[in-house]
Amino acid sequence: MDRRRELDENKDMSEHTYKKIELVGSSPISSDEAVKNAVSKASLTEKNLRWLEVVETRAHLEDGKIAHWQVTVKIGATLES
Amino acid sequence: MDRRRELDENKDMSEHTYKKIELVGSSPISSDEAVKNAVSKASLTEKNLRWLEVVETRAHLEDGKIAHWQVTVKIGATLES
Amino acid sequence: MDRRRELDENKDMSEHTYKKIELVGSSPISSDEAVKNAVSKASLTEKNLRWLEVVETRAHLEDGKIAHWQVTVKIGATLES
Amino acid sequence: MDRRRELDENKDMSEHTYKKIELVGSSPISSDEAVKNAVSKASLTEKNLRWLEVVETRAHLEDGKIAHWQVTVKIGATLES
Amino acid sequence: MDRRRELDENKDMSEHTYKKIELVGSSPISSDEAVKNAVSKASLTEKNLRWLEVVETRAHLEDGKIAHWQVTVKIGATLES
Amino acid sequence: MDRRRELDENKDMSEHTYKKIELVGSSPISSDEAVKNAVSKASLTEKNLRWLEVVETRAHLEDGKIAHWQVTVKIGATLES
Amino acid sequence: MDRRRELDENKDMSEHTYKKIELVGSSPISSDEAVKNAVSKASLTEKNLRWLEVVETRAHLEDGKIAHWQVTVKIGATLES
Amino acid sequence: MDRRRELDENKDMSEHTYKKIELVGSSPISSDEAVKNAVSKASLTEKNLRWLEVVETRAHLEDGKIAHWQVTVKIGATLES
Amino acid sequence: MDRRRELDENKDMSEHTYKKIELVGSSPISSDEAVKNAVSKASLTEKNLRWLEVVETRAHLEDGKIAHWQVTVKIGATLES
Amino acid sequence: MDRRRELDENKDMSEHTYKKIELVGSSPISSDEAVKNAVSKASLTEKNLRWLEVVETRAHLEDGKIAHWQVTVKIGATLES
Amino acid sequence: MDRRRELDENKDMSEHTYKKIELVGSSPISSDEAVKNAVSKASLTEKNLRWLEVVETRAHLEDGKIAHWQVTVKIGATLES
Amino acid sequence: MDRRRELDENKDMSEHTYKKIELVGSSPISSDEAVKNAVSKASLTEKNLRWLEVVETRAHLEDGKIAHWQVTVKIGATLES
Repeated sequence: MDRRRELDENKDMSEHTYKKIELVGSSPISSDEAVKNAVSKASLTEKNLRWLEVVETRAHLEDGKIAHWQVTVKIGATLES
Repeated sequence: MDRRRELDENKDMSEHTYKKIELVGSSPISSDEAVKNAVSKASLTEKNLRWLEVVETRAHLEDGKIAHWQVTVKIGATLES
Repeated sequence: MDRRRELDENKDMSEHTYKKIELVGSSPISSDEAVKNAVSKASLTEKNLRWLEVVETRAHLEDGKIAHWQVTVKIGATLES
Repeated sequence: MDRRRELDENKDMSEHTYKKIELVGSSPISSDEAVKNAVSKASLTEKNLRWLEVVETRAHLEDGKIAHWQVTVKIGATLES
Repeated sequence: MDRRRELDENKDMSEHTYKKIELVGSSPISSDEAVKNAVSKASLTEKNLRWLEVVETRAHLEDGKIAHWQVTVKIGATLES
Repeated sequence: MDRRRELDENKDMSEHTYKKIELVGSSPISSDEAVKNAVSKASLTEKNLRWLEVVETRAHLEDGKIAHWQVTVKIGATLES
Repeated sequence: MDRRRELDENKDMSEHTYKKIELVGSSPISSDEAVKNAVSKASLTEKNLRWLEVVETRAHLEDGKIAHWQVTVKIGATLES
Repeated sequence: MDRRRELDENKDMSEHTYKKIELVGSSPISSDEAVKNAVSKASLTEKNLRWLEVVETRAHLEDGKIAHWQVTVKIGATLES
Repeated sequence: MDRRRELDENKDMSEHTYKKIELVGSSPISSDEAVKNAVSKASLTEKNLRWLEVVETRAHLEDGKIAHWQVTVKIGATLES
Repeated sequence: MDRRRELDENKDMSEHTYKKIELVGSSPISSDEAVKNAVSKASLTEKNLRWLEVVETRAHLEDGKIAHWQVTVKIGATLES
Repeated sequence: MDRRRELDENKDMSEHTYKKIELVGSSPISSDEAVKNAVSKASLTEKNLRWLEVVETRAHLEDGKIAHWQVTVKIGATLES
Repeated sequence: MDRRRELDENKDMSEHTYKKIELVGSSPISSDEAVKNAVSKASLTEKNLRWLEVVETRAHLEDGKIAHWQVTVKIGATLES
């Protein structure tokens, strides 16, 4: 990336504000899959998803086994100006 | 509940995504009442409230007494698909 | 403020419910400025902002310098009844 | 309490070991009642309960209302020597 | 409240400093009552109590029952200038 | 589910007390597998496992590689009345 | 202790309020000694010290050795009524 | 240790599940001694104790001095298969 | 500083006990200024202030802007012997 | 940025590993300046600094005033492959 | 393992000091893979890696999907004597 | 110390940057001794050690006894300019 462009983007980025939303995704398959399900649900209504942070990992148990994973995530998205 | 139905519900549940919103409810009566007020306010605009977690309990004091309790809660609600 | 009026306001206040939203503000200037940018962005869509809590302070670095501060805040706003 | 007795009790107490068990009590009535239910259930199998610490307060919601409170407590009990 | 007065109060408020003291209140009746007892004890020696934050909730157990609740609070009071 | 049955179950559920036990499961394969191993060990002696919370994820390293994952979980189980 | 007396003391105890003060004790000898120094300093001005909680353990280093331990404690004392 | 044996042990270890129990040990002598007392009490009923983590250090005060230390520990023990 | 003097000071320092007080400073100007206001208020009644730790940063909002910053600090001061 | 290039960069980025180092910067001027001083010291020996997280804000006090701010930061830098 | 050897190893082990380094590993595939990448990068420059602790799990999002996982770990390694 | 010198030293100190390293010290004797071992190992390669903070205290158990204490510390050292 050339010098000038980098500085321009930087200036732009410094104007950004992000919102963080908290979701709980579920999956019978894996903890990672539960996170992916939360992201794909979020992407239906929110544009510009940028990052996520895993907050808590739980699982619902049935018959002595994991029936589904439940992972709480915070998802950061660029606020439309 | 019969075996088959339980598995069906399980599969359904594993598809669910929940959102968590954070509210502060107030009450001059009790800390529990402050929580209930937050829930009933949330229920006016959100459907499918499922659970809450108490995050913080504070109170506003006047004349050396508790004027009202202020309890912060996170409320989990099923996301409409 | 006279006695009676204070009690009236108190009663009113105890009816209030607040929501808390989580934002990340950015600024190339200072950490305080990043917080202010988050507030002014929030004020475009939310009325009745009441308080904020700083949750996390980070900065993006470029060329061995702070390019912009990124401060996560929770903002409390009165819920419309 | 006379001096000698206090010292004797002190010496005894310093020999004590306690175990802590973690329970979640439920109640449709109040958060305090959920704690009491956990204690009374614990008292059926454990002797010498001494103190408790509230770890987390949650509630299950139905129809936009609190259906029951669920409070996690740690209960300390004297270990039999 | 009229506009000018609100700004005046605001300016005043920005001059305030508060101290926070940590107390443990007790009650055989309820956790809320333990908080109230801490506040009323504080009000005997401190003026201008403004708010409290619940820090920890414990209880002392006797005979398999809650003998009294012990709630730790931080109480904020305006410092006299 | 019809209205009446839901209320009945609700009432029943509010009577429940759960205990939480803390286990560390291991696996050379994955962090999720370590959790599953903890659950299947717990199911040998405990009935009515209901949910788990991941508390901590560690791994033992050998020869510059992960030899096995070690995941601490809290498992909640219904207390027999 | 006979039954009646225990109940009487209990009732008394439930009336108690405690204050917690935060001190940092120092010692060149050991971390425990630093705690003891904080307690003995506190006992010069406060009566009715009841318990302490260790909050943080630090040490000042000189010449590649521990010069003195610095341990932060919270000390609980019965409030005079 | 020769290569093959190390791998064998490793495989074995990856099958292990540990339980963690929470105890409070007491001692009039020192905080370390309180930890040791908790361990030796645990060893009377639990086999295969493997490690401990100190969770909290408190002390009971009498006459302006430490009467006994009370240290909360979590002890990890191999689950019998 | 010469060797001997350093050791002397060290020995002295190891005798020190500090108390920590918790204050909330306010300022319409900046978060740093709010901290300074807390310190200057503390210095009116306490001698020998030594250090501070920022505990929490909040702000009061009016008309979609920060009206004043409110920063909670713990201030350490040498206890007079 | 065109589609293809974005994907390429993405793939590259997913190969990155970062190290985090913990520094305490000081400044008599402001808390932000203390952070900047830590960054500029880090940039003397570390290349590719990418972000920082503020961990703790303290200040050293002299004569009832802030003598210098001390801010602990974690700085993330790309590991050279 | 025979008794004597175990004691010898034990004595040796008690002489060990470990350092902990903090890394962020990335992977487009899974959170576990991101951890493995951090370990394999660490093994290029550090000998005697012994264990790791997962500190934080994040992910970078692109086009409404997880582009790569970013997992922060602390890795413990035996210090060369 | 005369006024001028104090200000000079102050100005110097405000220029300092410290790094923090995380070590785990071990000892079969006591928790304090484990800390000292970590410090003396650090002093072999790092100059200008200034302070430490105890982060975590664990112990390895053998035959129902503490085989050695393992204490994690963060050590602060002045960065060479």
